[in-house]
Amino acid sequence: MLDLVIIGSGNVAQHLILAFSKAKNINLVQVFARDKNSLTHLLDANKIISNFKDIKEAAIYIIAVSDTAVAEVSCEIPFSNKIVLHTSGSVAIEDLDSRNCRGSFYPVQTFTKSKKIDFTTIPICIEIEQSKFYEIINTLALSVSEVVYVINSEQRKSLHLSAVFVNNFVNHLYKIGNDICIENKISFEILKPLIIETAQKVELLNPNDAQTGPARRNDIATINKHLTLLTDQNQKDIYKILTKSIIDNGKKL
Amino acid sequence: MLDLVIIGSGNVAQHLILAFSKAKNINLVQVFARDKNSLTHLLDANKIISNFKDIKEAAIYIIAVSDTAVAEVSCEIPFSNKIVLHTSGSVAIEDLDSRNCRGSFYPVQTFTKSKKIDFTTIPICIEIEQSKFYEIINTLALSVSEVVYVINSEQRKSLHLSAVFVNNFVNHLYKIGNDICIENKISFEILKPLIIETAQKVELLNPNDAQTGPARRNDIATINKHLTLLTDQNQKDIYKILTKSIIDNGKKL
Repeated sequence: MLDLVIIGSGNVAQHLILAFSKAKNINLVQVFARDKNSLTHLLDANKIISNFKDIKEAAIYIIAVSDTAVAEVSCEIPFSNKIVLHTSGSVAIEDLDSRNCRGSFYPVQTFTKSKKIDFTTIPICIEIEQSKFYEIINTLALSVSEVVYVINSEQRKSLHLSAVFVNNFVNHLYKIGNDICIENKISFEILKPLIIETAQKVELLNPNDAQTGPARRNDIATINKHLTLLTDQNQKDIYKILTKSIIDNGKKL
Repeated sequence: MLDLVIIGSGNVAQHLILAFSKAKNINLVQVFARDKNSLTHLLDANKIISNFKDIKEAAIYIIAVSDTAVAEVSCEIPFSNKIVLHTSGSVAIEDLDSRNCRGSFYPVQTFTKSKKIDFTTIPICIEIEQSKFYEIINTLALSVSEVVYVINSEQRKSLHLSAVFVNNFVNHLYKIGNDICIENKISFEILKPLIIETAQKVELLNPNDAQTGPARRNDIATINKHLTLLTDQNQKDIYKILTKSIIDNGKKL
């Protein structure tokens, strides 16, 4: 049985609490939240603390707070030689306080409070400074997920950057698509099966091979029609830069 | 029973042939293909023609060819007062030959030869110049899909433009994400559950509400770290313009 303390009460923390509460071989000893009430729907009130002086000794501490707070929070843990992991894609493990064995436990997924998610399918990227602890954090990760990767800090930064492209930026393109629909009194519902299929396609096909559309065909007539339709300068600039990038990439193939 | 002829042998044509072959109340009389062999795996050879002089009389003709060939092909149909529909998102119905009643039958989906798709879930956008024929093409569309929308030519152009953002451009962002992974020896597999979840999220949430990430948080430190990591100028330019667009949009909220 591994004793675990989770620090944080946001989206990621709440999904972790749910997952670890059900995990075999894991004893979720405590959770730290600045506001206890934010977690009472998830676990017993006596397991929630809001003062670091009440924190219990455990084998592993997972810090699931905002990127900018990770370093500071890690200094609040009043123990040493424990395993302390953060959940951030863009924070180096060296940012954690060095009294403890530092590592990361990065679930590569977007979390929404209102949307349930099957945690077992979420890839967990693990890293730990002392390699003798890999087995223990691998066990920890496998207790909640079936997909565990060992990723170092440099790779994790690039992975997080890549996630910004395929998640944050993709969602912004959905937003622009939605705006164009609203402006032209078209139901955005029409595009939802296309959105899902586009995502599912890269399960089977390399995205380079999956590319279709006027830019890939170098269909300048359609591209010019689209540019005429776009009245918003920002949308036009985004259309131009992505079209040029697809055309340039096509030339390399 | 509605007699139908399909003209074309590409991706869209092949998915239509499969769907209409199984449709109740539809008699798929013939299919035109320049190369008969391209379709013999889908239907009886005696139903495939490659010369327009062999074309039979039918109630409806669907032209599923490349955008630039639609107009020319419509002139080859040796009948008049029939219903002639094209499947293009960006061609006006007026581009079809006016001897027949012109319309469109636009399935809003991305088709891949190697990937099966449940046609019944694909939204079909219909338009016809003589409104008395709406019932007949609505019946036609409902014979293969459960989701049918009436969309005029102007709306269809905007819908197609929106589809370019949520499909073509999104796929290009997947490609960039994949490139970053390859460059840093990270498995792109790690990002696939995130890609699917990002797409599924807009089923529940407006994409504006679903937006997360450093740009939405106006987290300049992380944005600058990402810009330092990006060595490819094109990727950097795309990162900058999309980040700026998300930040500017956040200011309006």
